[in-house]
Amino acid sequence: MQNKSSETKMKNKRIIVVGATGRVGREILSILQELHIPRRHITAAASAHSRGMLLDYGDEKIEVKDLDTIDFSNYDIGLFSAGSSVSEKYAPIAANTGCFVIDNTSFFRMHEDIPLIVPEINFSDLRNYDSKIIANPNCSTIQMVMALKPLHDCFSLKEVVVSTYQAVSGAGQKGVDELQMQINDILNNRIPGHNHFKKQIAFNLIPQIDSFGDLDYTKEEWKMINETKKILGINDLIITATCVRVPVFTGHAVSVFAKFEKGININHAIESLNDFEGIKVIDNISDYEFATPIDSAGKNEVFVSRIRKHPDLNNALSFWCVSDNLRKGAALNAIQIAERL
Amino acid sequence: MQNKSSETKMKNKRIIVVGATGRVGREILSILQELHIPRRHITAAASAHSRGMLLDYGDEKIEVKDLDTIDFSNYDIGLFSAGSSVSEKYAPIAANTGCFVIDNTSFFRMHEDIPLIVPEINFSDLRNYDSKIIANPNCSTIQMVMALKPLHDCFSLKEVVVSTYQAVSGAGQKGVDELQMQINDILNNRIPGHNHFKKQIAFNLIPQIDSFGDLDYTKEEWKMINETKKILGINDLIITATCVRVPVFTGHAVSVFAKFEKGININHAIESLNDFEGIKVIDNISDYEFATPIDSAGKNEVFVSRIRKHPDLNNALSFWCVSDNLRKGAALNAIQIAERL
Repeated sequence: MQNKSSETKMKNKRIIVVGATGRVGREILSILQELHIPRRHITAAASAHSRGMLLDYGDEKIEVKDLDTIDFSNYDIGLFSAGSSVSEKYAPIAANTGCFVIDNTSFFRMHEDIPLIVPEINFSDLRNYDSKIIANPNCSTIQMVMALKPLHDCFSLKEVVVSTYQAVSGAGQKGVDELQMQINDILNNRIPGHNHFKKQIAFNLIPQIDSFGDLDYTKEEWKMINETKKILGINDLIITATCVRVPVFTGHAVSVFAKFEKGININHAIESLNDFEGIKVIDNISDYEFATPIDSAGKNEVFVSRIRKHPDLNNALSFWCVSDNLRKGAALNAIQIAERL
Repeated sequence: MQNKSSETKMKNKRIIVVGATGRVGREILSILQELHIPRRHITAAASAHSRGMLLDYGDEKIEVKDLDTIDFSNYDIGLFSAGSSVSEKYAPIAANTGCFVIDNTSFFRMHEDIPLIVPEINFSDLRNYDSKIIANPNCSTIQMVMALKPLHDCFSLKEVVVSTYQAVSGAGQKGVDELQMQINDILNNRIPGHNHFKKQIAFNLIPQIDSFGDLDYTKEEWKMINETKKILGINDLIITATCVRVPVFTGHAVSVFAKFEKGININHAIESLNDFEGIKVIDNISDYEFATPIDSAGKNEVFVSRIRKHPDLNNALSFWCVSDNLRKGAALNAIQIAERL
């Protein structure tokens, strides 16, 4: 993604996309095609009921294969996004044949023998692991840690409070369909039903993503808490999260409050964000310039806005951060890992 | 609102609603009607161009009068929600005639001679002021302080981090119209325009409400910061806010992190919220029960959900709080003040 040589390296790899028919799988194919990876190097796999489906690959088509018929020894890289149970079963099989697995599910993320990677932040962590499976972090977590990393390098991160605003596409095609269906129902004076989400999402907010876990936090909130510590390598980080689904199709946003060991120079903070690979600061308040989810759709960057010091605390700041949850939040990050392998 | 005697008291008052044609003005009329205040005791006023407009009052109609023709000495209570410049000009005129003004705009809120009141919290503050003008707080602030007050009484509030999710009706009828128009445009494959909001709000989020002020915070954020301190009477409260507009018609939500002097017993916290007048706790996660904006529409309560201790800090908790921004966030709170006068 970043330079010609990395693209060239990827071009010689045989790649299998597991879960190719899902939202993230399709986004992976889209990005591979943007990178001009030849069609012949790519295999699309999914569950048996999708066998034979034709997926777009630029002007070409890719026929979906039944995952159960795949011999992973034919592949260098497997990009998995077919759900935790699929990864649990097939990722070790693939890894045992020598295929690198980059797994988009949460299944392996907190496993102590598995690296959890955002390439711009901790690609070098791979050195510390002897693993053919590499975990791709949670979508909201990726964009938040992208913004926190340069700030941490400047001021030493101590405490984080994050509230998320997460798009329905983060819940897959079913989430997108449900929002569309509900909008349609409301405009036709029908009472909207809901199946996928626990409450109506159209013109509403749902303060719950994933099931509930320890201490009444949702699993999505625990992912943000635990994965942030692992990626940034700060075991004693004091962090809490509230994860909320919003009626937006694409683009997650996070409202982040962060406290540091050192006092903050806000210009230095903004500069460090601007200089960080993959971040774009949009923060010109005199012209009301700030990032919103629809600005981020289809883009690779993590956008950071509303960067400002705490009114009273010299060592704390807040910011707003937006990114395409299917790109940097999932497919792009996985491919960036693959490119650097 | 709370008991029969207060209703009876209100019934003898001559009430003028200034800004009666706006979203909040209409909500005020709706609540006065629910309270069975006789139609003959109520006058609706607005700017000259609305003169003669007929507004619903239950099965009856109220004709809008030109504000410039009003003699305030004919009224006991003026409920103002016609914008800051109208309040600036007319509230002192009304107050000088002996009419109590309850002002929904931000104009007088932080004035040191004007009380800023949420009746359940600080009605007794009126004792400390010699003022016929009483300010009604910002919508998001009201619902947040309602939840913070009982917690403060138990554990002594020290620090707050809040991120808001604010409905378009908070921006008045223009905000509602703009979301509706944009949804319509999108469904008809037209590119949606925007006039009132600085960006598209349909299927999007706007991390800016009101214009920008000191330290790159918006004025809406400063309202939450400063008004919270004044209402709770905690001058040294460490508080920061991020205010975000979301594509919801009615019902503001706030995601609040709060740190206290004392260690927290979470059952005690929930009990104190449950016992507080005007609060309803909806927090049964085993059945996925939590409050969402559409649940709050048309209701008088402030709903609190997702109440949970910080994973690491013994003296901090988070919660989610939802309320109808036109009711407790504006019209209802103003009428509750009037009832207690």
